[in-house]
Parts: sequence; structure tokens; C-alpha cells
Amino acid sequence: MPHLTVEYSANIEAHIAGLCHALRDVMLESGLFEIGAIRVRARACAHYAIADELPENAFADLILRIGKGRSDQEKIAVGKALTACAETHFAALLARPYFALTLEVQEISPQFSWKTNAIHPRLRTK
Amino acid sequence: MPHLTVEYSANIEAHIAGLCHALRDVMLESGLFEIGAIRVRARACAHYAIADELPENAFADLILRIGKGRSDQEKIAVGKALTACAETHFAALLARPYFALTLEVQEISPQFSWKTNAIHPRLRTK
Amino acid sequence: MPHLTVEYSANIEAHIAGLCHALRDVMLESGLFEIGAIRVRARACAHYAIADELPENAFADLILRIGKGRSDQEKIAVGKALTACAETHFAALLARPYFALTLEVQEISPQFSWKTNAIHPRLRTK
Repeated sequence: MPHLTVEYSANIEAHIAGLCHALRDVMLESGLFEIGAIRVRARACAHYAIADELPENAFADLILRIGKGRSDQEKIAVGKALTACAETHFAALLARPYFALTLEVQEISPQFSWKTNAIHPRLRTK
Repeated sequence: MPHLTVEYSANIEAHIAGLCHALRDVMLESGLFEIGAIRVRARACAHYAIADELPENAFADLILRIGKGRSDQEKIAVGKALTACAETHFAALLARPYFALTLEVQEISPQFSWKTNAIHPRLRTK
Repeated sequence: MPHLTVEYSANIEAHIAGLCHALRDVMLESGLFEIGAIRVRARACAHYAIADELPENAFADLILRIGKGRSDQEKIAVGKALTACAETHFAALLARPYFALTLEVQEISPQFSWKTNAIHPRLRTK
């Protein structure tokens, strides 16, 4: 934790390069997350049917899953910051009437989750 | 929103064509969703271990994520309609004892979600 | 149900063989699930940005979704058993400071989910 997953229609594959890096920077700059815990990833969906099904129609759907402990204000702030980052990244797509972007923040139950992180020790000793 | 994601074992790839389109039509016909917001997609899982691990064993797992505001009755109606659509689409698979289908409806928190939809203006002005 | 999904960074693709099978065995041995309902799968994410973004950085994120009806103790027991299985499977990766593993157990709403399982009749009659 935290986990940020971007799911997108495969027809915008050419627009994905650099996205995970940019979102990771926003997560780090939020001050809410330890660097060794940040995991951003994106995966394409080869099959899709979007809105009126024009071939140009596309989407990106971001889900941020974080451990409990942040305030509502903190969750809203990071959600807005990630949305702003994605809007900037996808500005060319959003300028045309074929693209839809969403982001949702979810909480991970502390009672029913486990983690084994071999990255933390390396970065904590720096 | 709404988002409908189909996750399936890669051994039924030949059965996926047309599925997203058919599910999208059911979502539109439900009357619960604005056309410009409908996003159906499917993605294969290359690795899997299902039931007794016969190579024919396969699954499709559908998750519908929608914004709050629909009644329980409306959520149940659309869940049943999408299940019926998937059952029809996968009838050949369901006729043999190697396939399992599931569907779940989840709600998206209005407080912790954001959307930027460039498709709506195009379809709303029609 | 139950569904176990493994999402991982594509740079550990060589480590995934056998994982779904091993996790499936743990689920079966838990005694909590009927064999015909077990669906384990894994999918790679081609794009990612992890921690300090060294190219070796990698993750595996497991989400187990189960129907309601198990006690907290049972959920914790199966979560721990699956984590232990994944730790054993990924021992070589965890021995180096570039890998992070997580697992979360989620419940599926009985009211808003549907299933059509053609595998059960075959295995129940054995």
C-alpha cells in the first residue's frame, strides 16, 4: 500500500508512456505515503464498448487503494492532485470529445490485509 | 461511471468477441445510465488455476461499479439483466461442465471519486 | 466465488509460473471453499512506477474476494496462509531489496452478486 491502478482502453496505448511516473511523483509529493510503498501501474483492456461506440472513444479509470489512517481531507487532496495530474497528462485526449477519465479512492481494511515489503529496509536506511 | 469490467481466463479468448457490445446495450437499455458514461471492457488473465484444474476449466468474472443513487431494486434489476446477457453470450460454454460465471455490483463513493468526461458534451447536444 | 486475483509488474513474469496452482492448493486446503468455485488468476501490468523507480523494483498484489459467511478468524487464517504461500513462492525475490508483496481479503455482497456455475454439478457428483 498504496496501490494506484490505471485501467484503460487499448486504443490509447500511445498515450500511456510517462503516466505512471507522473502519478508516482504526485503520490510522493502528497507527503501521505512512504516512498518504498508506492506502486503505480497501468494495464490495457483489449476489448471495450464505450458510450456510442465510436472507434475513437476511450477511457482511463484510476483506482487508488490506500491503508486506513488518512483523514477525509487528505484523501480528497490526493484524489484531486492525481486527477489534475492525469488531466494534464491526457490533455490532448480531453481536448477531443471521445475520452472519459475517472478516479476513485478506496481504503484497504487493516484487519484483512498483509504486506511483506523488501524495499522499505533499503530506502529507510538511506 | 458506470464501469463494467470483465475478467476472464485466456482460454476463452475466442468467446469474447461481441461480449462488451452486448453488455453495453443492456446497460443502455436499463435506463439507469447516461450513454456517454458507459464503459464496458474485458481483459484476459494469462495465468490461472480453476477448480480441479482441467485445462478446459474457465471463468468470466464481471464487476459493475456504479455511482450511488440507484435503489436496491434498480441495482438488482441491472445485475440480473447483465447476468442474463452474459449467460446468453456464453451459452455454449455453460452447456459444458467447465465454465463458471459471476457478476457483482459495487458502488463508487461520491465523496472520494472524480470524473472528467469529454464525451458527455458531444452526446448531450445531439 | 471465491476469486483470487494476482496483479504484478511485468518484470517478474519469469517468477509467475506455478503461482496460481500453489495458491489454489492453499485455498482448497483451507476447507473454506468448494473446489468447483475456486478461481485463481494472475495478470501482468506492462507499465509501472514503483518506489524509487529502480528497474528491478517489482510488486505482486493479491486480492481475494469471497462470499459472506466466513468468520473474521477464518478470513484471517486464509489470508495468512495465502501470504505464506506467496512468500515461499517469491522467496528469491524477497531476498533482494526490490520486491513488495501485499494481500487483501474483500467480501462480496450476497444481495448484489450472481453466479452461474457449470463446474459444480460435475464435481459434486463425484
